[in-house]
Formats: sequence, structure tokens, C-alpha cells
Amino acid sequence: MGDLAKNFLSPKGRKRCASAIEYLQQHYGPRCSTGQAIREQHGRGEALDAGDPPDAVIWPESTLEVSDIVSLCARKQVPVIAFGAGSSLEGHVSAPYGGICMDLSRMDQVLRVSSEDADCTVQAGVTREGLNDYLRDTGLFFPVDPGANATLGGMVSTRASGTTTVRYGAMPQHVLALQVVMANGHVIECGTRARKSSVGYDLVRLFTGSEGTLGIVTEITLRIHARPEAVGCLTCAFPSMREAVDAVTELSMTGLGLARIEFLDERQVKACNQYSALDLPESPMLFIELHGPRTGIEEQIIQAQEIAHEHGGGHFRSSTRVEDHNTLWRARHHAYFAALASRPGCEAMVTDVCVPISALADCIIDTRRDIDAAGLQAPILGHVGDGNFHVIFLLEPGDGAERERADKVHEALIARALSAGGTCSGEHGIGLGKRGQLIAEAGEEVVGLMQALKTAWDPGYILNPGKLFF
Amino acid sequence: MGDLAKNFLSPKGRKRCASAIEYLQQHYGPRCSTGQAIREQHGRGEALDAGDPPDAVIWPESTLEVSDIVSLCARKQVPVIAFGAGSSLEGHVSAPYGGICMDLSRMDQVLRVSSEDADCTVQAGVTREGLNDYLRDTGLFFPVDPGANATLGGMVSTRASGTTTVRYGAMPQHVLALQVVMANGHVIECGTRARKSSVGYDLVRLFTGSEGTLGIVTEITLRIHARPEAVGCLTCAFPSMREAVDAVTELSMTGLGLARIEFLDERQVKACNQYSALDLPESPMLFIELHGPRTGIEEQIIQAQEIAHEHGGGHFRSSTRVEDHNTLWRARHHAYFAALASRPGCEAMVTDVCVPISALADCIIDTRRDIDAAGLQAPILGHVGDGNFHVIFLLEPGDGAERERADKVHEALIARALSAGGTCSGEHGIGLGKRGQLIAEAGEEVVGLMQALKTAWDPGYILNPGKLFF
Repeated sequence: MGDLAKNFLSPKGRKRCASAIEYLQQHYGPRCSTGQAIREQHGRGEALDAGDPPDAVIWPESTLEVSDIVSLCARKQVPVIAFGAGSSLEGHVSAPYGGICMDLSRMDQVLRVSSEDADCTVQAGVTREGLNDYLRDTGLFFPVDPGANATLGGMVSTRASGTTTVRYGAMPQHVLALQVVMANGHVIECGTRARKSSVGYDLVRLFTGSEGTLGIVTEITLRIHARPEAVGCLTCAFPSMREAVDAVTELSMTGLGLARIEFLDERQVKACNQYSALDLPESPMLFIELHGPRTGIEEQIIQAQEIAHEHGGGHFRSSTRVEDHNTLWRARHHAYFAALASRPGCEAMVTDVCVPISALADCIIDTRRDIDAAGLQAPILGHVGDGNFHVIFLLEPGDGAERERADKVHEALIARALSAGGTCSGEHGIGLGKRGQLIAEAGEEVVGLMQALKTAWDPGYILNPGKLFF
Repeated sequence: MGDLAKNFLSPKGRKRCASAIEYLQQHYGPRCSTGQAIREQHGRGEALDAGDPPDAVIWPESTLEVSDIVSLCARKQVPVIAFGAGSSLEGHVSAPYGGICMDLSRMDQVLRVSSEDADCTVQAGVTREGLNDYLRDTGLFFPVDPGANATLGGMVSTRASGTTTVRYGAMPQHVLALQVVMANGHVIECGTRARKSSVGYDLVRLFTGSEGTLGIVTEITLRIHARPEAVGCLTCAFPSMREAVDAVTELSMTGLGLARIEFLDERQVKACNQYSALDLPESPMLFIELHGPRTGIEEQIIQAQEIAHEHGGGHFRSSTRVEDHNTLWRARHHAYFAALASRPGCEAMVTDVCVPISALADCIIDTRRDIDAAGLQAPILGHVGDGNFHVIFLLEPGDGAERERADKVHEALIARALSAGGTCSGEHGIGLGKRGQLIAEAGEEVVGLMQALKTAWDPGYILNPGKLFF
């Protein structure tokens, strides 16, 4: 959007930004920083490509301060970008039009927990691990687990999900209510503590996944869950990826308490063996976790094992003892670092798609063929119960030709996912990186509807400008 | 909104409407009717208050026809109101500004079912029972059950839920993708067949619950579920409502496969005894259904019974045989008609709220006290696992004083639900009936955001005008 550049990057725009920073430094002292290292650190998440640093970083400590800062940015017409843990993968925190980065990590209070209602209210800067630590003695837990120790504000903003989605759902199934600072600095509340509601437009779910472009989330009321009475784990290897997926399809039809069904392809298993000195069979593997009442958990594991066996599964290891689970799941837990270590000195470009389960086997097989044909190293792993998988491209820094080949494979992967009725981003969002794919998936007219909505609520495009839309 | 009346009900507006009807009658023949009985039938759902009839009713048979009709209404600036089964309770299908009612019941094709992916695509006029009949031999089912045999288009539009929400979720957890005709007549598609996605604003969930004011849903891709391997039923009576709710709270913490937890208060049980010649104890009752693998279902029932017993529950009846379930659940299934029959000649005014479980007992007890103090007859029943309950006010037709007392009790009920952190409508929507309560719950500013969104997509307010907002 050329207009954004004109508005924010023109000499006038830069002057407005400088004057906003001056105000912020006067009022917030050392909590507003323009140090280069800090700015650079806040301008990129975990995307491969370096992002643009903001002009300043500020650490608000209350909703009132967030509102004050956004109001200032609204008056001055200066971009404002919310920052959580910086673990996003699609450039969500980059500042292509400069402006103020609002680091919410100091808003890290759990404000309220209700065991009876299985809900809680947290500030946006609380991390998911922080919340689960806080809940440790309550018998409750927050299940959404994207891997990274993201902030809950960030997880709302990117519509995060992860390993347990197959049983507990993703962020949209957990966010009951939000406090949000809008583009004019006003603080609004939407949603209630009721488990369900049919009261007008579902603004809670509209903010969930809006990547900080419609408002800045400051407080979140979340559903939490009773810890399962019993947890059973099962790992198994399959002769081929297709058989593993067929097993998953049948498992899904059983009513077993499947809480996680993770898939590692043979490259990923190999990397894990090397990294963690394991001796797993180097073939496609499933890591299954079952949650349920104590009664019947052993039988559930046996039933799952029988189904896996019918589809050629073997090398079973299982346990219902919590102390064994980490051992059994070690390969999965360390998968990302194992992948990185399998090519010393490499950088990772991580992507994900999500497809209907019936298309999953073909989609992974074809992608593996592309990767091999292009001479790339890229393990595949995924939340296979949801049809969601990740490709970790391991790239030699500075090797432009290799990067180009990876980009081509990536492009083909997304085209394949879309033509299978799937989505270009299962859980990483759009950010800067997938704006073109958003158009390819949703179509110009639907993206136009999104932009009309953005314009209605943030006519100056000051909230995270340049994200979602070009 | 005075502007709406001026635009649609002025002589010019009426003339534009007449000219639109002329076109429709020419092109659609007898599928466009202006007969008075048909218009009146289409102007009201099951709300107590008579709605305003539309000027004409039309039965499109394809998305193309819906698009054609909306395009015409857009050009002529004529209101257009989608109609499904007419089972809504808050005046959603009333035509306060006249216009064209679009009855989608002929768009009743199931377009696609995938057993492997557990999803399907249907036209908006398919009813939930129609879908389940269609799925009968597939081992799959669609669980959302609001009681009425509503169309799936209507259920999307009102964000319906019902008895099984506690396990399977409500409509937002089931709608994967939508085809929608927008206010300009354009046909758009949003969402995909992937189980999850983080691709821009969640338009699918924004349309879900938008009551036909943002677009007219023509096709829906839905998640469906494997039928549970085993179903267990348990009914029990409690000395008091509070003990019943306490039992529910504890049951929810167990990880048991609770699929329905329905509550009837003593008045409702009494009505059911009379209506169905049953001999249930006339005290608060729970009707519990458990879904799970065959292994352990008997034990689950025993565990549930033990928990209920600890909270004073008794009069247990249970079964895992499908043929017994209807007998056990007869009182619940016939509750609405039993309530009506308990006061011959009465009309029903049905309302619902949803509150955090911790507030449920007080909320029901205080409401019962109000009902009794006002000398009203009004059984209470609810989806107590979600904190959602319904009050069925049984009113003498034409008794204005009684109606006034009921309205006061209703008002107090909603104020009570809101002050407990709940919502003014758990599953009936806003329509015409709860527009004031929407403002009370969400606040003027948030309703203003909703209206800004409405204006961005439907600047002429032709889609179901007068609903959600005054």
C-alpha cells in the first residue's frame, strides 16, 4: 500500500514519529528505548528474514498506559505494533513503516482463576508456561501448546494452536472475553464469562487472529480445563507415511480420548536419533497421547495399538506413568532443535499448511518428493490429527540459489494445500510472509471485505500497518 | 433507526419494493408469493409477539437465484430477509421495514459427505434432522441440537447450540467454510476444509451469529463426528437445585465423557409427569448422557452416579442400551410441550441466559423466587453443563398485566445474568427482542463497532434491517 509509505515514511510522517517518541521518553523514561539492539530484537520474530526495526520500544505496565500510548499514536498518526514473546514466524512484529513497538511482557499478571468455572483472566503478557505454572496446584491447565513459550496476547492475535488441538481445540475455542485497546485509544471489553453466547457479531473471535491490526489485546479471559485423570502415551513406527495417516483416520473415528497425534517423517526421526542418541526406527512415526478417566486408559492404549497394528504399525512403546512420558516423547519434544543440529550452521525457514485428512498423505508425499528433487534438507513433522504439518527448510546462510529452490518448493506446497481444500497457514498466521498466499486462498474480494473492516475500525491504519494486507 | 424507516417505508421506498416484487413475479412465477397467509407465516418465528410480514416471499432454488434476488434488492434498495425453518425465538424473521423474505427451504441438498475427513457441505435449507437422516448409514452424525428442527443456515445465522454443547461445542466449533451472498449480490466463499487455519480475519465465525445482517448464507461446510461407540444415560433427582449444580461442577472436573447434562426444575418435572404420565420425583433433576468407547462406559456411569450421590442425588436410573434411552429421557424430550400443556390455552414466552457455572445456582434460585413472587407460571430447564438455562413463561393470551409482570421478571433475570459475568442470550440470539439487552451487555461503544462493520459491508442496510440494532 503506497499510501502507507507516503503517510508514515514521508518527512512529515517521520517528524510526527520523532515527536511521539519525545513525548514517550519524557513520560515513560527508560521504559521507552531507542537503543539499536533493542529495536532490532523487537523488529523480528523467529522468521528467517530480518524484519524492520521499530523507531522505539516501549514497555507499558497497564491497560491505561497502552491506551495512553495508542491515543498518542492516533493523534500523531504513528504506527504502533504489539509485541509479545517475539516467537512469531511470519514477520508479525516487523515495522516496515517504522513506529512504536509496544512490548507487553511486563503486563504479566494472572488476574483471576476460577476452579469452579474452569476459567481465568490474564494480562496479555502472561506466557502459556507462566499460566500453567500458576495453575499447577489447582488441578487445572491451559492446553493450547504451540511449542514456543508465547504470550497469551500473541497467541490470541495469531490464532495459535498446536499439539493438543485435536482434543481441546485452538485459541478460538478458549477465548471467552477480551479487553482491547482500539485504534483511537479507547478501551473496550467484548465477550463474557459465559461458556457460550449468541449476542451479535462475534468480536471476540474476530480479534482472535487479527494480528494486532484491529486492536491491541490487553486482557484475556480464557477457558481452562481439568487435568485429565489419566494420561496414556503410545509411540509407533509405520512402513510408510500413508499407513500412518490411515491409522490416524481410523483412530479418529473411535471415540478414544486422543489428545495429541504427532507425526515425524523419517528425516525428522533420523535427526532426532542423532540429536538425542535414540535408537528409533528411521521410518514415519506417530506419537500419541490419550487423556481420559483412569478407568479404561490401559484398554484405550491397547485399542489404539491394535488399530495402528492393522495399518502396519510396530515398534510400539507405551506407558500410563507420567514419569515415562518425557522419555517416550523425547524425540518429539526436541524435534526442532534436532532438525537444526542435523545441518550445522544452517538457518531454518519454517512453514505450515493444513489440509483435510484425506489429502494429508498425498500432500506430504508430494512435498517430500519436491524437497528431495530440489536437493534440499527439510524434515516434516506435524499435528497429524488436524491435517496440519510443518516443513523445516534447513538452509545455508547466504546461499541465494538454495533459498530460491526452497521458495519454489514452498510455493508448490501451498498451491497443493489450497487445491486440496486446505489452508496456507494452519497456525503461523499471515504477517508479512504470507500476504500473497492470503489473496491466493481467500480471493481478492474476500480480502477486500477484510480491508473494509480494517478501514472501518482503524481508518489511519496505525495498528500494525503492512501486516495481512499489502 | 429513523433513517431506515425513511428509506424503506417512504412512498419512494414502497414504490421501489413494489417494482422489485413485479420483477420477481415475472421471473420466478408462483415461486414469488404475496399471499397474506404466507407473508404472515413468514413474518414471525416462534416468538410470542407477532412479527411484521414481508411484502413478498420467494423460494430460490440455487445460489445463483439468491444472488440474483439480492442484486435486485440492492439496486432497488429493498430489504431482504433470509428465512429457514421459522423456529427462531427473538423475531429474527420479522419485516419491520417490509421487503422480500427469502425462504431457503428448497435449497435442501446435502452436497458432499466425507467420512474420512468427518465433514460435509450442505445447502443452507437442509435441516439438522435432514442431515442426520442423510448421515444415518455413515457412522457419522451432526451433534448440534437446539431442539427445533432448524435449518443449518438458520443455525449458522443465530449461532445455535443446544444440548450437546458441553461435549461437541456449538455452531462456531462446527462451521468450517461458508458460501455467502453479500449485500451487493456477490457470491463469496470463506474458510476452507482444513480443521484449523490462521489466515486473516475469521470471517466464517463473523458470519456465524450475524443473523442475516452481513450476508445470506447459501452453503455450509460442517464438521461432523463419529457416532460414539457407546452411550450411557443416567437420570437422578436432587434435594435442591444447588446440590444438582454442585454435582455438575464436580462431574465437569472428572474427564468423564459428558455429552449432555440437562436440568429440569421441580415445576418442569411436575409438568412432565402430568404430560407423559410419569412418576418422577418432583424435585430438581439431572439428565446425563455419556459418550465414549465401549470399554469403561459402565464404569463411567457408576462414577457419575457416585459423584451425584455425594451431592445428595438419588432416584437413579441408568442404561447403556440405546433402546432404553428414549424412555429415560422422555421427560426431557417432551419438556416444552409438557410445559405448554400444564397451563391449557396459554402462550409461551421463552427466554434464555448463560452464566458462569459458579453463578448458576443463585441465578436460578433468585429467578424462581421472582417468578413465584410475581404469581407467574414458568418452568425452568437448561443445558446446565454450559451454565445455560431457559425460562418458559406460560402466559394467558391477552392478559396485559400478567405479561407486564413477566417482562419485569425477564428484565431482572437478564440484569442478574449480566452482573454475574454472563450473557443475555445463550443461544437464542438478539433479533428484535433483545436489542436493548445487547446494548446493556456489550455497551454502546462495542455496538457502535458492530454497526461500523455492518455499514462497511452493507451500507444500504438492506440485509435484515432492524435486527441486532435499533
